[in-house]
Amino acid sequence: MLQSKILIPTKKEAPSDAEALSHKMMVRAGYIYQVSAGVWAYLPMAYRVIRKVENIIRQEMDKAGAVEMMMPALLPADLWKESGRYESYGDNLFKLKDRRDRDFIMGPTHEETFTEVIRDSIKSYKKLPLVVYQLQDKFRDEDRPRYGILRGKEFEMLDGYSFSADQAGLDQAYELQAKAYRNIFDRIGLDYKVILADSGTMGGKNSQEFSAPAEVGEDIIAYTDGDYAANLEKATSKFTGVQQTAEPKELEKKPTPGAHSVDEAAESLGIEPDQIIKTMFYIAKMSEEEAEPVLVLMRGNDEVNEAKLKDELGCEELTLASEEDTVKYLGAHPGSLGPVNVDENIKIYADNYVKVMVNMACGANEDGYHYINANIDRDFRVDKFGDFRNVKEGEIAPDGHPIKFTPGIEIGHIFKLGTHYSNKLGAQVLDNNGRLVDVIMGSYGIGVSRLLSAVAEQTADESGLVWPDSIAPFDVHVIPVNAKKADQMEMANEITTNLEKAGYEVLLDDRKERAGVKFADSDLIGLPIRVTVGKKAADGIVEIKIRKTGETVEVKTEEVANTVGILLKQLSGQDANEAK
Amino acid sequence: MLQSKILIPTKKEAPSDAEALSHKMMVRAGYIYQVSAGVWAYLPMAYRVIRKVENIIRQEMDKAGAVEMMMPALLPADLWKESGRYESYGDNLFKLKDRRDRDFIMGPTHEETFTEVIRDSIKSYKKLPLVVYQLQDKFRDEDRPRYGILRGKEFEMLDGYSFSADQAGLDQAYELQAKAYRNIFDRIGLDYKVILADSGTMGGKNSQEFSAPAEVGEDIIAYTDGDYAANLEKATSKFTGVQQTAEPKELEKKPTPGAHSVDEAAESLGIEPDQIIKTMFYIAKMSEEEAEPVLVLMRGNDEVNEAKLKDELGCEELTLASEEDTVKYLGAHPGSLGPVNVDENIKIYADNYVKVMVNMACGANEDGYHYINANIDRDFRVDKFGDFRNVKEGEIAPDGHPIKFTPGIEIGHIFKLGTHYSNKLGAQVLDNNGRLVDVIMGSYGIGVSRLLSAVAEQTADESGLVWPDSIAPFDVHVIPVNAKKADQMEMANEITTNLEKAGYEVLLDDRKERAGVKFADSDLIGLPIRVTVGKKAADGIVEIKIRKTGETVEVKTEEVANTVGILLKQLSGQDANEAK
Repeated sequence: MLQSKILIPTKKEAPSDAEALSHKMMVRAGYIYQVSAGVWAYLPMAYRVIRKVENIIRQEMDKAGAVEMMMPALLPADLWKESGRYESYGDNLFKLKDRRDRDFIMGPTHEETFTEVIRDSIKSYKKLPLVVYQLQDKFRDEDRPRYGILRGKEFEMLDGYSFSADQAGLDQAYELQAKAYRNIFDRIGLDYKVILADSGTMGGKNSQEFSAPAEVGEDIIAYTDGDYAANLEKATSKFTGVQQTAEPKELEKKPTPGAHSVDEAAESLGIEPDQIIKTMFYIAKMSEEEAEPVLVLMRGNDEVNEAKLKDELGCEELTLASEEDTVKYLGAHPGSLGPVNVDENIKIYADNYVKVMVNMACGANEDGYHYINANIDRDFRVDKFGDFRNVKEGEIAPDGHPIKFTPGIEIGHIFKLGTHYSNKLGAQVLDNNGRLVDVIMGSYGIGVSRLLSAVAEQTADESGLVWPDSIAPFDVHVIPVNAKKADQMEMANEITTNLEKAGYEVLLDDRKERAGVKFADSDLIGLPIRVTVGKKAADGIVEIKIRKTGETVEVKTEEVANTVGILLKQLSGQDANEAK
Repeated sequence: MLQSKILIPTKKEAPSDAEALSHKMMVRAGYIYQVSAGVWAYLPMAYRVIRKVENIIRQEMDKAGAVEMMMPALLPADLWKESGRYESYGDNLFKLKDRRDRDFIMGPTHEETFTEVIRDSIKSYKKLPLVVYQLQDKFRDEDRPRYGILRGKEFEMLDGYSFSADQAGLDQAYELQAKAYRNIFDRIGLDYKVILADSGTMGGKNSQEFSAPAEVGEDIIAYTDGDYAANLEKATSKFTGVQQTAEPKELEKKPTPGAHSVDEAAESLGIEPDQIIKTMFYIAKMSEEEAEPVLVLMRGNDEVNEAKLKDELGCEELTLASEEDTVKYLGAHPGSLGPVNVDENIKIYADNYVKVMVNMACGANEDGYHYINANIDRDFRVDKFGDFRNVKEGEIAPDGHPIKFTPGIEIGHIFKLGTHYSNKLGAQVLDNNGRLVDVIMGSYGIGVSRLLSAVAEQTADESGLVWPDSIAPFDVHVIPVNAKKADQMEMANEITTNLEKAGYEVLLDDRKERAGVKFADSDLIGLPIRVTVGKKAADGIVEIKIRKTGETVEVKTEEVANTVGILLKQLSGQDANEAK
């Protein structure tokens, strides 16, 4: 492909609002163009990467026995009203009307539609299990679209769905998808973690999340050098609390004027923060009609993990109480709260690390006052102890290795949905005993467009993008230093032809630009190998440069295809290793 | 591919609202599923066809030097407001708002967005010409979606755009696209006509339309056995009028009570319809402020061609006058109109065939009365003669051959847009003299999903679909008559493996269904070749059937791959010939 025939509008400057390296470099390299906040055009180079990712996905889905099809993006709202998500999806859902005033949405995901198709198409377990998928643009009205194509309003997804008449069928499909996902990310050469994830609003346990470590990741992943990885919300560590042995002292109320935080209270009282009980007051929404106040006690230097708490409470929503509610129930503002003399209608949950403490300090439920020497049972009750805290780096994970933290980009997610949607939408089949049963579903997704961002975050450097060969838009960038010189252009053409004959994809920079411009653009564009045809062309010698390492080697022109082959093979091996 | 693993929900009955053969058969064959009126899911079989069409398109676009990229479907409304199409596109445009109340549309086409990208990306003629394209779902809020995926609210398009700094660049891109379009339709094996089209609201002359003859086509194509083809609005024929030589008689007013049509008036007056002047009264909107009344005279048995009239008048809109306006201007209702004694502010246009008539009958501009013996100049004026009529079948086309009519489905359209959009949106480059010039654009489109309907309309029969091999979802359907018999399944598997090794795509019907069900499904699905493994399997003999012709031949199993190869080659040849 001649560079003069393809649209690669490189730029010297990144957009002023760009924070992420991938965003800056993909714009500067002429890969993407912002049409509106969170709405992007994939220019030819980015689209070549997308197509390569799609090809890898299709091959692996094929191997996993999944079948491709295509749903509309424009969806009638009815089904989403039936499933309840027309409301629960909130402002993220793009809603629109047709000319007859009927409600439609732009699909952000397709559980309902697939369930409906299966409901209307399959009546017997004999036609199951079935795994279908699509590669499609989805729509989500992000409140804060950012980081380029990492978080946009329109984005490409692989979404797959499995349908089976029994649990074994689901388990099998789920395992095949999990394997396919690993293969896909391995082949792309991405560094990723497989983590136990909170399944959020998707409904249903048994899920795995695939996350790519990167500075701009929106999640914190707790992982080890072993095989443990979890989102911070789910991560657990070995309990290392030791029962304190001091004699209980007398409960005493102390003035702590102006002390609103644990640290301030500790200073005011002249004690360590870990001897203070951090007290948080929540409202747990148990159902549409019922809400319960809950007091949560943590060791002073620990953080509440609301996801764990919510799981334990089994509530629909868990929100920090308003100041108004706090004062109403406890008589003081946040910063002066504690468990002593709390009304018995308020449940008290405490983290396990509180259980081993004696002579604790805590708020006195009176603004500006704390108790010291509070002790469990004697001075306050605890209804339930449990693991309600965030783990910390260095703590020991369940696999015995110390925990590390990294931000991560969610790139894939697989769920055992069960019968959540089939039950709501009436998708039933006859099982092998002739009984009608709800179809058991799984749902599987990869963020295709955001994969580009994830790779770029992990591989780009200060000069530009650095693509792994598996998804690079071209394998080789051939650059005649001076395109006006006939011998250089001739040799560049010959090398291009030879490389293409050998099966490589080549971008030939035939532009009449200065050498500096060409090299800078080449670094930005980030193809794995660059072949520079310069002055030594006259002697039949060209330079080969590896974009990733900057290493160069001079070779004879007839050795170019051979050398490129060896280097690309080495690079693929490196990418695969580093990703592990 | 095992048929048990793919979703092909065949049906005995077509949907009750299905009129078109393609609609009925694609639903019955389990290819498509209606999610909402005009909104369809492409089930795995249809999507395989789509992907094959896409591959052909990509190869031909590549050859034509066009580069693929991908725009968002969600588009900010601003640009469409600038171009004027936010209003002019009317109810067909899907409009929506984001959470910040900003206006968006779902793109029905992408001229504006591409123009903007080029405006922001290219500053010099040196980077031009450039041809870009995308394969993307478009959205149009059809008033009457129908015929299955032929006319839907969401549909896949190939849309391409060329940009150049001079006319020569446009002409070259246009010719390359025209050639590529022919190659694409030829390879698909479609019967199509290349016609001179009215470019409608796209702005700009110089366009070609590609239309596939089919009963449910929405346009009438006038074509010949030569190379002439035109939409009825544009079609012309050789003028064969002969000057009438009768002596002018005296103008006379006759009562014609109850005669409102040409035929009724002819009967009432005792003359032939072709001796009557059909008189139509129009309002021509010349601009936002200015409208002109126009009287149009046709030979009684001819039909007005409003597109030709509109071209001649150079007006923005041409509408038949309301009854109220007609009475106001002419003093009578439609049915009694004529050119005699018409106010001189009303322009009178007459078709060429009126020019040769003498002693004509016409309405008297008095309800219930006609004149007879009206003559041009003596009794009424004509401001302009011209070709304002629809051609008729059998008339001689400009290529010397008699005209035939067929309904046609528009499958492609190419336009020389010129500077319409670049001018409105400020897309300019420096030309080779250093002057800023508007970029010259072309726009090119193929209805990808509706191509499936067009092919099915042309090839399906009463048993089901009949795909040309170029886009068939699989090449061969292998059917063991009784999947419970081990020897048949074994041989079917072996044949499948051999065919796949030879490079063919095979669907193996491994379902434990009755033979009748399998054969009926196979006919519905419509793969080019069927291999039936039945009782003679024991003797190493199977039956090969050509779906298109119903011809069968028995061959030894070891000859299957060879025979399939020969038959597919023959079929491709036939398809290509028939399409010519």
